[in-house]
Amino acid sequence: MIMERLRATRRLLNYSPKSFFAPRSHPNSSEHSICRSASGFAHWGRYSEHQKRRFGGTVWDPLGIGLGKASTIQCRYFGSVAAKIQRDPSFSPLNSDDISYFKGILGEKNVIQDEDRLAFANTDWMRKYKGSSKLLLLPRSTEEVSRVLKYCNSRRLAVVPQGGNTGLVGGSVPVFDEVIINMSSMNNIISFDKVSGILVSEAGCILENLVSFLDNQGFIMPLDLGAKGSCQIGGNVSTNAGGLRLVRYGSLHGNVLGIEAVLANGDVLDMLGTLRKDNTGYDLKHLFIGSEGSLGIVTKVSILSPPKLSSVNVAFLACKDYFSCQKLLLEAKRRLGEILSAFEFLDNESLDLVLNHLEGVRNPLPPSMHNFYVLIETTGSNESYDKEKLEAFLLRSMEGGLISDGVLAQDINQASSFWRIREGVAEALMKAGAVYKYDLSLPVEKMYNLVEEMRIKVGSSAKVIGYGHLGDGNLHLNVSTPQYDDMILAQIEPFVYEWTSKHHGSISAEHGLGLMKANKIFYSKSHKTVQLMASIKKLMDPNGILNPYKVLPHSISYSTV
Amino acid sequence: MIMERLRATRRLLNYSPKSFFAPRSHPNSSEHSICRSASGFAHWGRYSEHQKRRFGGTVWDPLGIGLGKASTIQCRYFGSVAAKIQRDPSFSPLNSDDISYFKGILGEKNVIQDEDRLAFANTDWMRKYKGSSKLLLLPRSTEEVSRVLKYCNSRRLAVVPQGGNTGLVGGSVPVFDEVIINMSSMNNIISFDKVSGILVSEAGCILENLVSFLDNQGFIMPLDLGAKGSCQIGGNVSTNAGGLRLVRYGSLHGNVLGIEAVLANGDVLDMLGTLRKDNTGYDLKHLFIGSEGSLGIVTKVSILSPPKLSSVNVAFLACKDYFSCQKLLLEAKRRLGEILSAFEFLDNESLDLVLNHLEGVRNPLPPSMHNFYVLIETTGSNESYDKEKLEAFLLRSMEGGLISDGVLAQDINQASSFWRIREGVAEALMKAGAVYKYDLSLPVEKMYNLVEEMRIKVGSSAKVIGYGHLGDGNLHLNVSTPQYDDMILAQIEPFVYEWTSKHHGSISAEHGLGLMKANKIFYSKSHKTVQLMASIKKLMDPNGILNPYKVLPHSISYSTV
Repeated sequence: MIMERLRATRRLLNYSPKSFFAPRSHPNSSEHSICRSASGFAHWGRYSEHQKRRFGGTVWDPLGIGLGKASTIQCRYFGSVAAKIQRDPSFSPLNSDDISYFKGILGEKNVIQDEDRLAFANTDWMRKYKGSSKLLLLPRSTEEVSRVLKYCNSRRLAVVPQGGNTGLVGGSVPVFDEVIINMSSMNNIISFDKVSGILVSEAGCILENLVSFLDNQGFIMPLDLGAKGSCQIGGNVSTNAGGLRLVRYGSLHGNVLGIEAVLANGDVLDMLGTLRKDNTGYDLKHLFIGSEGSLGIVTKVSILSPPKLSSVNVAFLACKDYFSCQKLLLEAKRRLGEILSAFEFLDNESLDLVLNHLEGVRNPLPPSMHNFYVLIETTGSNESYDKEKLEAFLLRSMEGGLISDGVLAQDINQASSFWRIREGVAEALMKAGAVYKYDLSLPVEKMYNLVEEMRIKVGSSAKVIGYGHLGDGNLHLNVSTPQYDDMILAQIEPFVYEWTSKHHGSISAEHGLGLMKANKIFYSKSHKTVQLMASIKKLMDPNGILNPYKVLPHSISYSTV
Repeated sequence: MIMERLRATRRLLNYSPKSFFAPRSHPNSSEHSICRSASGFAHWGRYSEHQKRRFGGTVWDPLGIGLGKASTIQCRYFGSVAAKIQRDPSFSPLNSDDISYFKGILGEKNVIQDEDRLAFANTDWMRKYKGSSKLLLLPRSTEEVSRVLKYCNSRRLAVVPQGGNTGLVGGSVPVFDEVIINMSSMNNIISFDKVSGILVSEAGCILENLVSFLDNQGFIMPLDLGAKGSCQIGGNVSTNAGGLRLVRYGSLHGNVLGIEAVLANGDVLDMLGTLRKDNTGYDLKHLFIGSEGSLGIVTKVSILSPPKLSSVNVAFLACKDYFSCQKLLLEAKRRLGEILSAFEFLDNESLDLVLNHLEGVRNPLPPSMHNFYVLIETTGSNESYDKEKLEAFLLRSMEGGLISDGVLAQDINQASSFWRIREGVAEALMKAGAVYKYDLSLPVEKMYNLVEEMRIKVGSSAKVIGYGHLGDGNLHLNVSTPQYDDMILAQIEPFVYEWTSKHHGSISAEHGLGLMKANKIFYSKSHKTVQLMASIKKLMDPNGILNPYKVLPHSISYSTV
């Protein structure tokens, strides 16, 4: 044991003076987009390309599922027994006068009725949900969004706001025939203040484009996620996207300084402040952060950008048990402090899957399997200080027995290969067969108990793996089986939600509720809180036209609140 | 010029190897509380002692103003022409049955009718606002708060929620005869999770007590302000308190993870999550952060605590012009990056006032006056790295001409003496005579233009000084005159609000609106936004019993929305 530790210690120290490497993220590198998916698939980063082609007429179907024709919701997999719901009869069907009216506002070419383009916009990224909208609108200004919504509200036409359509809970596609309002034509950067680091942009800007723009200015976006090549900032804000930088820069509730949003009746709320501090009344922008387009359509965003720091280091470590991972997190927070930028973990089963199913991925540690692996990233402003600090921390943790083994990346390729392991888990799971996926927030010390209890529950019929953003208390729990089986699902649900609720966790850490989890809300929110949500929805969107059937439980959203 | 720079450079370098000093803040040191007032007076830190004595019967009157008897609001100074408002006749007067009922819920000793104690609770910290409440209630649990509010709502008794009563805009005292619900008896720490750094406490915990508690655990509070010896965490959250750590840790919207609040009708909203990530529906806790007790009473708070870092450094620097200060801020963000924890500025006139009016304060720089002074603080986890990094930055800035002169604190006493200059400005202003105070957020590059324009406007009849949290874009603009004079006030207002509004600033960066600025809200918020605020107020507090006359403009709050 001691010999092993010493060997590992030597390896940790055995890197060249050139071992500093440049930042992992290069906005123009699709390879990097590919290997940085936080919770989705590795090819997310290429989605925008496919999307462009798709709008040009090519059908993209990487999973080979085919475009289903279901008119009610059928969750093919990924948990949740299919929830069949009915179209709300209070919504009007679309007629030719409506089309003419929209053409008058937006111009002929921004009123899309082409079947191929509609098929694409009706289908979510996972091919799990498919609506039957007959109309896609592409407004180019807040004024146009306002006029469209005012009309839809007066005509009781239901709408679904859509950004990059990269959501994972069915929030960004129609359920039935809702009019799709896609924001991609509102993609201008409005201003950037280099002194304060405050960026103002339209909602349809693709996250990666903002990243590139800021990179040239010496700044970064405070959020980063695998879908950045397709997702839009308005969608990020509307869904309160989490991602890889949350442990360092916090959530969008802290980083978004202002919002412009259009309400259901067409009223424009100008809350587009560009100030770090503003205590003049209720801060209503927070209502729009994470409400998934159900209270209004975000048209512009003001966001605080941190300065870009030059020094990034990545270590891939092995721990003998989950308690050591926890302890290591605590130590990392204290000793790495201000330079810690990621603390991710995966279990032995996760690594095993990645090594077995992904091409060209190898274990950077010697073949003996450990129980847990941790990826630590630091980002700071001084190469040599940061590296020395990380080394000292790693040596201390090794000596203290928290780390069983570990390697420190010596260049950007090694760093990318470490990230590839962590980020390849989702892709490996897809290749391994059927998978039931859960995105949960839990108290860190209890998080892994759920994985272990789930293993006992499903027995030998399925493989249970756990990985995720340990630094944020965010577990991605996955149950992998050769094929989908309702018997397995019945063993997982509602157990997984009940367990999460019992331990004061959240059934959706970063993906939102959308359609998938609207009816599961009571596992994470009290009845009184949901009732107040519903009252606010009723106040702000009395006809319920904005993204219906989503977020709020159907029992409440159909009743008069 | 070059000689001067070299001399300064030498001084910057000329400190002993022991020049690292311990963290500036020691929770048990009243001296530190004294010298850390962000925007109020130096003796704020001792307020809690006085408060205790006051509740014991001693009248505290440090400003020698005396307890006024005004039954309508009379702003004696500090801007804003007195706004005379009428008591809302829809509120019931208190009767003896009410008192009996409250005694039944809270017990005799928590229903306060003692005149001395009421006089204290009726008067705000600045002695600017004074109500005439006849009843102070001290609930000890959420259940008691709920029962009290449910009763008040049914009886239409107006209430004012009160924490440490350290607010500066008249938000925490009654305007007329509102029942005071003081939260100081709900002062238990409920839990602390050392792995995640998440603290859960009751709303009445004094900030400094939480700081001490966390200090023992190796953590800090993400907010720090001069009033910490008296202010309560529930009040901090309800007013979205800013303070000295905002530039590093961001606002409470990012740091507060959960809230328990009681609505006007007594309903308890349990949103006391202890998770960093939770995307299950609208994040309604944000409605309570900064709404100044007008939507509900915050009873418990869950907050993310950063780990305590051991290395703190402070530099006091001179700049030749405001542009250099701005440029220096940009450079500091980039080069000090993750260790920058404060960037404060004051002008020559501010330093002059401090040196002339405060005992024992001396200029750490040679006697030649510069135009601007900047205080930079860094906080990190490695003493030698941090100091070297700061030195390199200072030398570079000196060589580049951004800094004209400067000193780096060699021990905690020097650091405290630098902070004393910055934090002594408010106290010096009080000693200098009458003062009109404004707390504004402005784009950093335009901020000081207002000071210069104000100087032209008031001419030789008053002294205009500017200082504040440059790193946050928060200017404290003060106009100092020998005595109060409505002619001067007419030159300042509404000019100062109009100028701020024209430059997209905020008329209240961190103090809130309270009673003082309720009618000024339209300078910073659009009519549609204020209308939505009012609708939400009406939804959540239909009888308007919670902190009436505050936050919302009186034209709207008296009408049916």
